[in-house]
Amino acid sequence: MRFHRDPITVAEAQQRILAHITQGDIEKIPLFESEGRRLAEAIIATSDVPHFSKSPYDGFAVRSADTTGASIHNPIELEVIGAIACGDAPDFCVEVGQAARIMTGAAIPQGADCVIMFEMTSENEARVDRIVGIKKEMKPGENIVFQGEETKTGTRLIEVGTRIGPGEMAILATFGYAHVPVYRLPRVGILATGSELLRPEDELTYGKIRNSNSYMTASQVRQAGGIPILYGNLEDDSDLAVAKVQQILSETDFLITSGGVSVGDFDVMVDVFTRLDADLLFNKIKMRPGSVTSTARVGQQFIFGLSGNPGACFVGFELFVRPALHALQGKSQTALPEMQAKLGIDMKKPSPFTRYVRSSWTIEQGEIVVRPVGMDKSGVVTNITDANCLMCIPAGGAGAAAGDLVTILPLPYRAGE
Amino acid sequence: MRFHRDPITVAEAQQRILAHITQGDIEKIPLFESEGRRLAEAIIATSDVPHFSKSPYDGFAVRSADTTGASIHNPIELEVIGAIACGDAPDFCVEVGQAARIMTGAAIPQGADCVIMFEMTSENEARVDRIVGIKKEMKPGENIVFQGEETKTGTRLIEVGTRIGPGEMAILATFGYAHVPVYRLPRVGILATGSELLRPEDELTYGKIRNSNSYMTASQVRQAGGIPILYGNLEDDSDLAVAKVQQILSETDFLITSGGVSVGDFDVMVDVFTRLDADLLFNKIKMRPGSVTSTARVGQQFIFGLSGNPGACFVGFELFVRPALHALQGKSQTALPEMQAKLGIDMKKPSPFTRYVRSSWTIEQGEIVVRPVGMDKSGVVTNITDANCLMCIPAGGAGAAAGDLVTILPLPYRAGE
Repeated sequence: MRFHRDPITVAEAQQRILAHITQGDIEKIPLFESEGRRLAEAIIATSDVPHFSKSPYDGFAVRSADTTGASIHNPIELEVIGAIACGDAPDFCVEVGQAARIMTGAAIPQGADCVIMFEMTSENEARVDRIVGIKKEMKPGENIVFQGEETKTGTRLIEVGTRIGPGEMAILATFGYAHVPVYRLPRVGILATGSELLRPEDELTYGKIRNSNSYMTASQVRQAGGIPILYGNLEDDSDLAVAKVQQILSETDFLITSGGVSVGDFDVMVDVFTRLDADLLFNKIKMRPGSVTSTARVGQQFIFGLSGNPGACFVGFELFVRPALHALQGKSQTALPEMQAKLGIDMKKPSPFTRYVRSSWTIEQGEIVVRPVGMDKSGVVTNITDANCLMCIPAGGAGAAAGDLVTILPLPYRAGE
Repeated sequence: MRFHRDPITVAEAQQRILAHITQGDIEKIPLFESEGRRLAEAIIATSDVPHFSKSPYDGFAVRSADTTGASIHNPIELEVIGAIACGDAPDFCVEVGQAARIMTGAAIPQGADCVIMFEMTSENEARVDRIVGIKKEMKPGENIVFQGEETKTGTRLIEVGTRIGPGEMAILATFGYAHVPVYRLPRVGILATGSELLRPEDELTYGKIRNSNSYMTASQVRQAGGIPILYGNLEDDSDLAVAKVQQILSETDFLITSGGVSVGDFDVMVDVFTRLDADLLFNKIKMRPGSVTSTARVGQQFIFGLSGNPGACFVGFELFVRPALHALQGKSQTALPEMQAKLGIDMKKPSPFTRYVRSSWTIEQGEIVVRPVGMDKSGVVTNITDANCLMCIPAGGAGAAAGDLVTILPLPYRAGE
């Protein structure tokens, strides 16, 4: 008897997964180690930026009223009463007829209401107790970056779930987040199924192939912010298989299997699911490749049963595991983003299900054009490197023609990078 | 006396750096650890893919001549003599009138020259020593993936310098690269200069700011494949400063400093360069922000003197340090890629030098449109998170107008990701 399969849409499958995901645990880690992690709290400005009025240039802090009538041909001379370096807290006041040498970023001293750029003065060096010639008439407030001009205390700067990159690091440092609240990295067990599989270090023998899916999936897990852990191959023996899956679930957040979901292979997986009292969320999806992609829930955990075909395994990860990993790390956009692109060639192969074709989008004469990468047989492993998106070809006998607008899902991998 | 500065173009500055870079050392590391690293050798197919002719479907391997005249209404019956699972090396021959049950990915047995899909037979299960009804006439070679059909031995699959992602991992595993030749990760020392700088954990005091550049730069280094190492602040004392820079150069490949390159601050750096017998490659660039960006060479190593302003520091890294890190890791495209985009607003501020404006490109009605992110003062730290490219506005009084085509340099950071 064939195992019963009731195909559902990709969107429905994604919903069934996300409905059961609660956000992951939160931990506080040192700022320097937070690169690439996802924020578990929104980041708020803890001070004004700048938090004191400062000079944007090297120059002289002066009173604008003292510069009335100044010009290149008629410089007005002021007495230099001090120099303010970056980091100084000036303890003097610029009085009428006085100026203070000031460096870029230094605090504006009392009394001064503008800064004249070094180049517009007749002094080439900062010499205290000397005279500086002012060659330009200044307005009050000119060349001052006022306290809070860039950012006011309390401004919400970064949202929960954002991945920490250079800009986020700069903000966190600026506002004193020496330790950063982030989501714990999800741990993802990876298990291959299939007695045909050799390890990368094994010699090829007739009829067998090396396991590539586990390594490919590990890379996808890392890119999606998880920690991949390889658990080798699933045993054919049902008792051993159940024990292994239980062990993995006790050590990880999710388990990804590849292979063992096709018509003839599913028996061991069904047995595992049954004996673990797993809730089978789906075992058939209206998509190609990978229609037999299956997912079961064991408590708060998931077993993602991806196809054994490399191409289908790749697509299954991007459509179903990535959203789960994103959700666990608080990312609001869980699925891959969508874009429209112009199809560069005919894709008229009829398909009863929506096709997710590994493709490459480029910009040609200002338009976004998408083409499949090489042959799109699901077993073809060598062209995954060339894909920077999945192209969606709707189900039906017509497919899509060159020039049609199609939806593409850009991938976060860059060909040739 | 002002330190002499002779401004050169960005391209010339990049060339001066790259002219002195030799590729980094090579190491062999386990496949599982190679994610994100750059290949030090081109990857060649070490076998055909598939390396034996195989079935793309679940079904029966038969002799096509035996199926002549078969149809749904006139099934032809064949004797099932065996079953071939994935990984099996079939040791029998399919003779006239015989069939073998075969699984997806399994090796085609001798004698058979085609595979009929399971769904086109009258058997629902693989039962040896039984009869199967064939409901379709088959052609020789039909539904066989022939040896080498996907990839022939010796095919060059991945180029030197490619970053290892999911597709590369799959290829490396498939072809038995259990250990992978990659470039050693460059070590990059990061040093702040400026007595105004507090650490992220310090309380703000008047006139001082927290050091954000070191953390921002560390994130950029990681993204470009390097290992960042923070060395705190450069001492004001010349002897201590020289000793510290020497120590860092002995422990790293490159040193990045931020700050200390402006007119009034450069003295300590010049002193360090002089006493280390460094070759000053440039100390002024025809660009905004960050025109005072400087780079010196000490033997095979570089000291990148980036601006202390966060925005200028960010741009300086992307234009000068990134290419050096890429070159050291064998990446052929060392600089950021270039694209054309339509300017979304007027950018008419005159500038004597080309401006590199932190910007965001989006797709609007099929066109690539670029706009600057927020105020583009170089001191503005909070909008770096929103930038996904640098927009190049040519030097001159006119700037660029809304609708003009401008060159953008897409950044490998995704806003809101």
